[in-house]
Amino acid sequence: MHAEILAVGNEVIMGHTVNTNASYIARKLQTVGIMPKYHTVVPDEQEVIEEALKQALNRCQVVIVTGGLGPTNDDLTKETVCNYLKLPLSMNEEILQNIKSYFEKTNRVMSENNKKQAMFPEKAFILPNSYGTAPGCILEVDKKYVVLLPGPPKELNPMFNQYVLPYFEKQQTVIYETCDVQLYGIGESLAAEKLQDILGEFSDRSVATYVGNGIVIVRITTWAQSSIDAKKKLEMVQKQIQGCLGTYIIGYNENTLEQTVYKMLKQYNYTVATAESCTGGLLAATLINCNGISSYFKEGMVTYSNEAKQKRLGVNKHTLEEHGAVSPNTAIEMAEGIKQVTGADIGIATTGIAGPGGGTKEKPVGLIYIGIAIKDQIYVYQLLLNGDRNTNRIKTVQQALLHLYKLLQ
Amino acid sequence: MHAEILAVGNEVIMGHTVNTNASYIARKLQTVGIMPKYHTVVPDEQEVIEEALKQALNRCQVVIVTGGLGPTNDDLTKETVCNYLKLPLSMNEEILQNIKSYFEKTNRVMSENNKKQAMFPEKAFILPNSYGTAPGCILEVDKKYVVLLPGPPKELNPMFNQYVLPYFEKQQTVIYETCDVQLYGIGESLAAEKLQDILGEFSDRSVATYVGNGIVIVRITTWAQSSIDAKKKLEMVQKQIQGCLGTYIIGYNENTLEQTVYKMLKQYNYTVATAESCTGGLLAATLINCNGISSYFKEGMVTYSNEAKQKRLGVNKHTLEEHGAVSPNTAIEMAEGIKQVTGADIGIATTGIAGPGGGTKEKPVGLIYIGIAIKDQIYVYQLLLNGDRNTNRIKTVQQALLHLYKLLQ
Repeated sequence: MHAEILAVGNEVIMGHTVNTNASYIARKLQTVGIMPKYHTVVPDEQEVIEEALKQALNRCQVVIVTGGLGPTNDDLTKETVCNYLKLPLSMNEEILQNIKSYFEKTNRVMSENNKKQAMFPEKAFILPNSYGTAPGCILEVDKKYVVLLPGPPKELNPMFNQYVLPYFEKQQTVIYETCDVQLYGIGESLAAEKLQDILGEFSDRSVATYVGNGIVIVRITTWAQSSIDAKKKLEMVQKQIQGCLGTYIIGYNENTLEQTVYKMLKQYNYTVATAESCTGGLLAATLINCNGISSYFKEGMVTYSNEAKQKRLGVNKHTLEEHGAVSPNTAIEMAEGIKQVTGADIGIATTGIAGPGGGTKEKPVGLIYIGIAIKDQIYVYQLLLNGDRNTNRIKTVQQALLHLYKLLQ
Repeated sequence: MHAEILAVGNEVIMGHTVNTNASYIARKLQTVGIMPKYHTVVPDEQEVIEEALKQALNRCQVVIVTGGLGPTNDDLTKETVCNYLKLPLSMNEEILQNIKSYFEKTNRVMSENNKKQAMFPEKAFILPNSYGTAPGCILEVDKKYVVLLPGPPKELNPMFNQYVLPYFEKQQTVIYETCDVQLYGIGESLAAEKLQDILGEFSDRSVATYVGNGIVIVRITTWAQSSIDAKKKLEMVQKQIQGCLGTYIIGYNENTLEQTVYKMLKQYNYTVATAESCTGGLLAATLINCNGISSYFKEGMVTYSNEAKQKRLGVNKHTLEEHGAVSPNTAIEMAEGIKQVTGADIGIATTGIAGPGGGTKEKPVGLIYIGIAIKDQIYVYQLLLNGDRNTNRIKTVQQALLHLYKLLQ
């Protein structure tokens, strides 16, 4: 089955909300053998929603509609979809009670507007909302499925997992398996050349390269009637890639960089501590993404000021005066300092000018130093980045983890 | 002019890459009077791209196509679009030289595949790429515009700002202005009821409510022939909203929570220091999002272990033994500790169980305490969250900032 994911909402169209729901739903659908084929976003306008729904039903068997189930007058999704499908809405007393108790439970006053959230077609498969007032529903018409879901991810995600996935799991015919092979130290074009016999769309698999977060990724997707067969094919392709590009592989699947580092820390039984200036805690926060890191993450300090760098990490006053806070010397002393102060095996430090202000001709915005003290060795790396403040900080964290990975190798 | 933003790429369709380009482009287009009307995402399949392009050109005057300009065989966008528009591609020697020197500059080997990135129709307005190998282009056909851009944001964003915006700025007829009014302490339905005379789509403005990051937002968009007129209308609506909901307003426009807190710190000349356990540096990193915070952000510590909590913050050993690390008592001592140790005016601490492991019957996953020591007062807040590890940490940071905001008020 193919699916279209149709988001409704001016806030998405205007770019004020990123459509993370589409990627979440797309990933989840594949686990029950439904292949996403289109994502569409339309504004809160009745005719446009109707036109988009009509098109989606023409080209896909499953249409997942997100957003527009709220209580206000510009929340039109349910009314528009049901009108188009000729499914009249009526008050569902049980759902109305649920909404009333949700308001009582959260100590809020229910508004008259909220009542429309309890209106459903008679044959709808209603999806309860444990984290908000808007229930979703699944409508089955002529062997096609229209799923209506609330827009906020904290309501949509649990509803999707708890009710929508099991609903489609029962009807599953094809199982998809997918794997990301992450490469470091090789460009996308060269990787593609080395993989030219493997890359492409085939009858039972697809293999493609792309670049994500500065890392080249080879994505393998395989499909079969059973999970075992799909996994077998996946492993076969993985082995082929290992044969061609083994030395460049740094990990598999999502978020592997910090997880790869975490696994290596675990393997060597090394503890790590962070001293951050320009990244302001983001390096620690990224490492702590890994569930289970607590035994290997010793401590982190955000030493934004020169005073803190001296007091907490023992950075020499003269180093700061002579070379400045953004210098290889300071990065080295910070890394060495955090290692000694915390007794960790590894100290990582960042210092730099994330922007937009603070740059000079000698030290422009984007100049960043990463220091890594590991056992009795010490390393320092210079970056010259060209993103905005936030991008520069994220990139710095990524580079710090990549360098640590290479050293641990 | 209306625009459709058409993303091409299996990695977006399959949900492995979030389509942040669409929201970026949508926000930027409005600044030059182009109104986004549709976002579409399609896979790397020639017929599907062609069909989507045809539809987009039927309903919008501007079509921005992102992705699929890479060097590999599954990068089909430029070839498909130019074939559809009957614009033959030929080698552009100047661009080829640029690509060659990009490879030399970045010390990489140019692959044979990269040559196709220098092929363009004769009349294309070529958009140089300073951060990658794929140039973009603008094609004008029958007073419609097709813009081809590379997928990676670090290449797309500067190209869009430097070349695409100025190109359309010259042709601008209508100016849009937009403002988000952020509300705290009132639900969306009640807010909508109080604003019922203001909400809706009108001939020169639109006003809508929605929920983002747990905060109710009223979005105002106005349009006129000049920026001055559009801004005047915007201010008028802002005043109306202040009249209805003044006491609930916590800020304006994007990312206001940390920026609102930052402005208040500045206003009172208060310094702040953070002591984080479960949020692992994310609270510090969020505050440090604000450019200029360095004078008010004193220091941050990531005290993930009990040992660090005692050693760095002076948390009492008996408190940890008797009440545990996740307790109001520990949160209070952490907040008080970081305040004293750093000499900041305000200490904020987080401790809790972000999950997925570590929960017990008495202390389930999602139980989190926030401690805030401000001058000689100390406050502690309990949260019981139900998201995944990362959501719980983000939510904790947001709640910590909201509580600090309320205290500073």
